[in-house]
Amino acid sequence: MTNNIRTHNCGELRIENVEETVTLYGWVNSFKNFGQKKFVDLRDRYGITQIVFAPEVTEGFDNIQNIGREFLLSVKGIVKSRIEGQTNKNRETGEIEVIVKSFKIENKSEVLPFGLDKKSIENTNEDLRLEYRYLDLRRPEMQKAFINRSKFIKALSRDLDDNNFVEIETPMIAKSTPEGARDMLIPSRKYHGSFYALPQSPQLYKQLLMVSGFDRYYQIARCFRDEDSRKDRQLEFTQLDLEMSFTSYDELRNLVENSFIEAFKVYNSEISHEDFETISYDEAIERFGSDKPDYRINGMELKNISNLVENCDFGVFSGCVKNGGEVKGMCIKGVIDKYSRKKIESLQETAKIYGAKGLAFLKITENGIDSPIIKFFTEDELNKIVEIFDAKIGDVILFVADKKSIVNDSLDALRRQIAVEENLIDESKFKFVWINDFPLFQWDEENNRFECEHSPFSMPNEEARKFIEENINSTEDAIKYKDELLNLKADCYDLAMNGVEICSGALRIHVPELQKKIFQIINMSQEKIDYMFGWFLKAYNYGAPSHRGLAFGLDRIVMMLEGAGSIRDVIAFPKNKNWFCPLTQSPSKVDDLQLIELGIEISKKE
Amino acid sequence: MTNNIRTHNCGELRIENVEETVTLYGWVNSFKNFGQKKFVDLRDRYGITQIVFAPEVTEGFDNIQNIGREFLLSVKGIVKSRIEGQTNKNRETGEIEVIVKSFKIENKSEVLPFGLDKKSIENTNEDLRLEYRYLDLRRPEMQKAFINRSKFIKALSRDLDDNNFVEIETPMIAKSTPEGARDMLIPSRKYHGSFYALPQSPQLYKQLLMVSGFDRYYQIARCFRDEDSRKDRQLEFTQLDLEMSFTSYDELRNLVENSFIEAFKVYNSEISHEDFETISYDEAIERFGSDKPDYRINGMELKNISNLVENCDFGVFSGCVKNGGEVKGMCIKGVIDKYSRKKIESLQETAKIYGAKGLAFLKITENGIDSPIIKFFTEDELNKIVEIFDAKIGDVILFVADKKSIVNDSLDALRRQIAVEENLIDESKFKFVWINDFPLFQWDEENNRFECEHSPFSMPNEEARKFIEENINSTEDAIKYKDELLNLKADCYDLAMNGVEICSGALRIHVPELQKKIFQIINMSQEKIDYMFGWFLKAYNYGAPSHRGLAFGLDRIVMMLEGAGSIRDVIAFPKNKNWFCPLTQSPSKVDDLQLIELGIEISKKE
Repeated sequence: MTNNIRTHNCGELRIENVEETVTLYGWVNSFKNFGQKKFVDLRDRYGITQIVFAPEVTEGFDNIQNIGREFLLSVKGIVKSRIEGQTNKNRETGEIEVIVKSFKIENKSEVLPFGLDKKSIENTNEDLRLEYRYLDLRRPEMQKAFINRSKFIKALSRDLDDNNFVEIETPMIAKSTPEGARDMLIPSRKYHGSFYALPQSPQLYKQLLMVSGFDRYYQIARCFRDEDSRKDRQLEFTQLDLEMSFTSYDELRNLVENSFIEAFKVYNSEISHEDFETISYDEAIERFGSDKPDYRINGMELKNISNLVENCDFGVFSGCVKNGGEVKGMCIKGVIDKYSRKKIESLQETAKIYGAKGLAFLKITENGIDSPIIKFFTEDELNKIVEIFDAKIGDVILFVADKKSIVNDSLDALRRQIAVEENLIDESKFKFVWINDFPLFQWDEENNRFECEHSPFSMPNEEARKFIEENINSTEDAIKYKDELLNLKADCYDLAMNGVEICSGALRIHVPELQKKIFQIINMSQEKIDYMFGWFLKAYNYGAPSHRGLAFGLDRIVMMLEGAGSIRDVIAFPKNKNWFCPLTQSPSKVDDLQLIELGIEISKKE
Repeated sequence: MTNNIRTHNCGELRIENVEETVTLYGWVNSFKNFGQKKFVDLRDRYGITQIVFAPEVTEGFDNIQNIGREFLLSVKGIVKSRIEGQTNKNRETGEIEVIVKSFKIENKSEVLPFGLDKKSIENTNEDLRLEYRYLDLRRPEMQKAFINRSKFIKALSRDLDDNNFVEIETPMIAKSTPEGARDMLIPSRKYHGSFYALPQSPQLYKQLLMVSGFDRYYQIARCFRDEDSRKDRQLEFTQLDLEMSFTSYDELRNLVENSFIEAFKVYNSEISHEDFETISYDEAIERFGSDKPDYRINGMELKNISNLVENCDFGVFSGCVKNGGEVKGMCIKGVIDKYSRKKIESLQETAKIYGAKGLAFLKITENGIDSPIIKFFTEDELNKIVEIFDAKIGDVILFVADKKSIVNDSLDALRRQIAVEENLIDESKFKFVWINDFPLFQWDEENNRFECEHSPFSMPNEEARKFIEENINSTEDAIKYKDELLNLKADCYDLAMNGVEICSGALRIHVPELQKKIFQIINMSQEKIDYMFGWFLKAYNYGAPSHRGLAFGLDRIVMMLEGAGSIRDVIAFPKNKNWFCPLTQSPSKVDDLQLIELGIEISKKE
């Protein structure tokens, strides 16, 4: 029944096929003349095969004059082994070539708007690439990226399938419940003045599936957020969304790590459970200044010397600590010769981006400590500092004194920058770290209210739950216990890969009374709770199980696995940075009739 | 590392587990008292296990009084074999029960708004079921449906994966190109007055992927159509979308049939390539009056007697034929005793729904032919009719005389109805038929113009392509060759399963000049072509390959496989028939601020 038009693809012929008559289809990747012969690199998704047109062998040889780059050809010919010295070891088909007996120009091509080789692409404006995305996607790097992306997602899915997870599709046409990011709205044609919304995530639906008893759910889910363009964001993105009932954090982690171990094989990357570390949020901030530390970086851990310098003579340090700030630093090994005044000034610029007012330093020289601030410290204080940082001759210690968040953010940034500069990162490795025990709340200074650090649906840990259940019955109670609440922890977890957050999850609240208290703490009125989440909270009155889950940002993970420069390189048809699609010229104007049917108008006043 | 909270699920304990101590989690499906003991059917996604509370064994026995239906319990107990006569053969766990040593009410439940047993569900308003969808989904039938749905889609996907297909995600935030059904629009916040649209299908994107050289693509794709509610439609639906380059119809069919054969195993349904028949559109209409015949029905094929009756004395028949109509009929075997005047009148009512003015009949009795119209026919004519229909004593022949479409539609409807009435359909079987050689165009009487029977992107067959290329250069040419164009065929194909269209596909046009002529024939202005499809047609200038594909309506297929009454029974969170979601109360009003940000207003005039 099968009737294959081609006998082989352009990536599969080998020395074993010599003397076979084959039919190939492919695009003209490049061509060159050699004597009377013409050599063409014929390309398809699977590879490149060299084909040879020769006047004495090839029927209709004269037509070759019409061939140009990216013409689509079909050729019939005989596989020959290349003569010695002309084989191409970088190509799997490099030992053979196909001598063309007959061929057909299946479709011609206009001159391309840009070249498809790496160099040309680097010099091509991204919007032009996106306008001709179908050409951009012909590049072997891009083809590989999307084939790998597909395989990676399949591998994750298969492992979950094998563990009794059910993939269930949740609606794309959902309810608007803005909270955090903006919803993208869809005007309803049947109910004028009412709107559906694209889901920011399947969060509430997946939790309802747990209430339904589906026990182990996942979905490769498209999500939508109308956030102001941050680097590497798109209006739509894909996440691996997962939820489980009757489980523990350890079981969930183990299952997820197993899926990752399987899926990373697609990239020939051997990872094991040992590559997954664990740290609490507080410890991560203390040691690395970050809630997504890069575990490929060894050393340069931050040390807190606030206690030591609280009463020292250096006013910048002691004043900072007395005003509730912190002094932390890190020791960079053996860089003393490179760390000129100019170099340190440039590091200071980095620190300033994160709000630091300056950068203090100590250099450990053969002749003792060298630093402009040395005069403010006693011998004993200096010795203690050297001890704390385990500093040796040749090292440089950097310090930031400021309020907590600035100290941590700026030292984290410096640590990452220096690790790159000093070549301390093994780019071939993948290192993961689970971060636990996130704060339950943070204080929104601007609006003078609590907000949830993770999500209002995340479960407080046992101690926090007890505190809230015993003490909170109103928004006023929350203000009263501000300090206590800010110290509470949630049963939340993130996963960072190579210093990038790739996953976020939590145990969910499944008890209506507790959920209500959380909403009270973040100052949501009962009316608003009812309107936005009443339909959802109702479900908890019917024997809801305890459940937990997480969501992975797949675009970002694939981008990292591919070593791609942008998330747009791993999305087939992305919008540009301004959320315009140069390919389809979208968004675009629509007929007035369409708007009339939807009962909406474009605002005239701006 | 693993720390399982439950030792087993509620579906897996067997006689081999007797005397094991187990921990189960589940919902109280039902309970009964027996003496001092309480028996509970504990249910989860995997099954039901009988658990027994006994005062002398169960810790905290008195708390059982508080248990109600759908309470969530965790129990620790010992597996015991049931005493003879009390086993339950309908249940996989029916040979054992668990004697509870300790238990916990994990979460209580309010009284449900409706019972979860079949009878209660039948008497429950569908909107109420949808409002409490998370309870509706607890029913074992529903759980099975979604687990099977997931497995079925996975099986299809895996087979395609194994055949080098790449799943590539295409945008959900796309361009509005209304054509046929209405687009659902998304106002752009960044570009006021412009709109994105949800894709009606990935059609254009997948064709661009072929231009990119991805060669074998598929996607489990969400699609969106704002069509006026037809039976079993939703605003969003899921299709298996597939496209291939460098292939033949036979190869595509074979691959797709293989995937189906694999996937049907999920439903323990053994199908083979032999269950896939092939028929041309014209033959299907001629023999069955339908372009989606139900191949489970044997016999009752339609016969055309137009030639025979063109000059007969029965004016209804001869007049019809002379006016360009047709007379067709079908023979129903052995029903003469059942086909009273009243019965035939009721069949006539069916025919009338499809526009027929009446239904003529001949009954073949032991004493010759019996019919009110017998007097209009000669002996010879009657003999020929009997011969054509191969009618035997006991049979009844039904006739419709009218214009072609009415004859075919009404006889198709009668054939399906009678097949059910006469029990001629084996409901356990799945019969497929590929329908080929669809007409390229049809004539839109209302708007006095051509439209494409399938899609404007479908390739004419060779003869048709030649005709168009040679004769058509403008919309005027098309009108001039109206009759010829209406006879042309396209390289299109549908697949019908048990008389329902489940798939539609075609070879695509990949030649810009031909595509332009097709748009001319359907009277699309160059301006409109450029605005709507210019960005797309441009791609064909760069060595586009010949490609073909198809799309399967997965919701409908799963519905049929499940024997579900409605498509809503196989979609986790569907809208109701009025496209309202009773669960989330969506669509809903949004904040004025959201609309201001989007630059739109709700129209005041209606």
